[in-house]
Amino acid sequence: MSHLTEMLRTHPEPAESNGDLARECIEACSDCAEACTICADACLHEDEVEHLTQCIRLNMDCADICLATGRVISRAGHTDAPTLQLQLQACQHACETCADECEMHARDMDMEHCRICAEVCRRCAAACERMAGALVA
Amino acid sequence: MSHLTEMLRTHPEPAESNGDLARECIEACSDCAEACTICADACLHEDEVEHLTQCIRLNMDCADICLATGRVISRAGHTDAPTLQLQLQACQHACETCADECEMHARDMDMEHCRICAEVCRRCAAACERMAGALVA
Amino acid sequence: MSHLTEMLRTHPEPAESNGDLARECIEACSDCAEACTICADACLHEDEVEHLTQCIRLNMDCADICLATGRVISRAGHTDAPTLQLQLQACQHACETCADECEMHARDMDMEHCRICAEVCRRCAAACERMAGALVA
Amino acid sequence: MSHLTEMLRTHPEPAESNGDLARECIEACSDCAEACTICADACLHEDEVEHLTQCIRLNMDCADICLATGRVISRAGHTDAPTLQLQLQACQHACETCADECEMHARDMDMEHCRICAEVCRRCAAACERMAGALVA
Repeated sequence: MSHLTEMLRTHPEPAESNGDLARECIEACSDCAEACTICADACLHEDEVEHLTQCIRLNMDCADICLATGRVISRAGHTDAPTLQLQLQACQHACETCADECEMHARDMDMEHCRICAEVCRRCAAACERMAGALVA
Repeated sequence: MSHLTEMLRTHPEPAESNGDLARECIEACSDCAEACTICADACLHEDEVEHLTQCIRLNMDCADICLATGRVISRAGHTDAPTLQLQLQACQHACETCADECEMHARDMDMEHCRICAEVCRRCAAACERMAGALVA
Repeated sequence: MSHLTEMLRTHPEPAESNGDLARECIEACSDCAEACTICADACLHEDEVEHLTQCIRLNMDCADICLATGRVISRAGHTDAPTLQLQLQACQHACETCADECEMHARDMDMEHCRICAEVCRRCAAACERMAGALVA
Repeated sequence: MSHLTEMLRTHPEPAESNGDLARECIEACSDCAEACTICADACLHEDEVEHLTQCIRLNMDCADICLATGRVISRAGHTDAPTLQLQLQACQHACETCADECEMHARDMDMEHCRICAEVCRRCAAACERMAGALVA
């Protein structure tokens, strides 16, 4: 069992039905913040950095938004559902915009780190969308 | 002139009409993240901490969301307006929820740090609302 | 292969000999920030929260320091070794202090989330120590 | 009185002799994180971005380290002095390295945002040094 699963399992007020979605969302946000931080740095090292400035900026925005989202979802006492949903929607949007930009550079400039980062962003967008959906219901 | 005003003025692509709103919003997010971080710590030190756990949790959520929002607004190349607007709305909500909770403790438990924190949260909510409104137009 | 391994492998200037240590350190910091954030929230939900305030505070400090450390290590152009080493040492210390506190509550109050959090903190402290050692050499 | 002064004044366990140094340090870290975030974005917008990649990377490291340092100092229950001191030293180093790099671009490339950012970094380095000194005594 991962440490995250164990931490959530031993929480005195465990998230019931949403537990798996929350864990998936926390992991996806953490992975995405990490991938975007590294992708920004990798872009800075590329010879064609002047074509990657928008990508770097979106990477940084996405990393910061994923970080905040993951932390908020980690605090299991979800009494403020409207804030959570807006935050999850902002995160989904940030991830999709970043994935769009990264996919363009993966395709046109053969940037491998952008291709992997885009995949991680897509997974995070999907996890945020599922989690936001569960909060409505 | 504050360092923030100077930094924004010397940016090679300065925000035009939204400049004052952006500066106000960055400052309000930074102040609010700071106030919420201190309010959470102050609540932890209070004798009645068991009545303040929800306040501490909302303080921490608000601090993390304000931080992300301030950073994203600081990156002036606002090409992804939908993400920004959702992030500003999430921040406005987080600030209002935190202010509601803090005001309750200011009133019922005479908590001075909660009273001041609530004021800072209200200012940040208003700044986020104005900034989000300017992005639509 | 994990996304992190792939991201680091496709970086245009991959960390040579330190690559595995860097990956291990980034992962450990991310896991520890996550565990500490959840442990703080779990502590806030416990009936004996008034005995856990120091633990919550150390959890929050440790989460913030791990986050900064993981991000800095993720930016592979390590030209400022003295800063990195001090940051790794600060992180090692924060993790050890937090582990000490958590272990006490795991033992005396049978707090399972504190026991798991302490293990994650110990792993992070060890990873930071190894990484700091590699930077000297 | 600033909100920060008021927040620290109404904390149930106010920092005694170190109070002014702590406030100064929290403010300096917050200003520096802000200036570095904007400087990184401004550098990304410059035509000569390929000469500014090291500056951008150091700006981001400095912003992340200042953020963590400011948050840790904001939690007034300073029972773990060794961690605090190492964190303050890491922050001082990060600020000085970033200031050195920014001053170079201010001089050689006439970058105004780098000149202002360097000043903010120097102030933060000095505030961290003073705060670290007070913790020893």
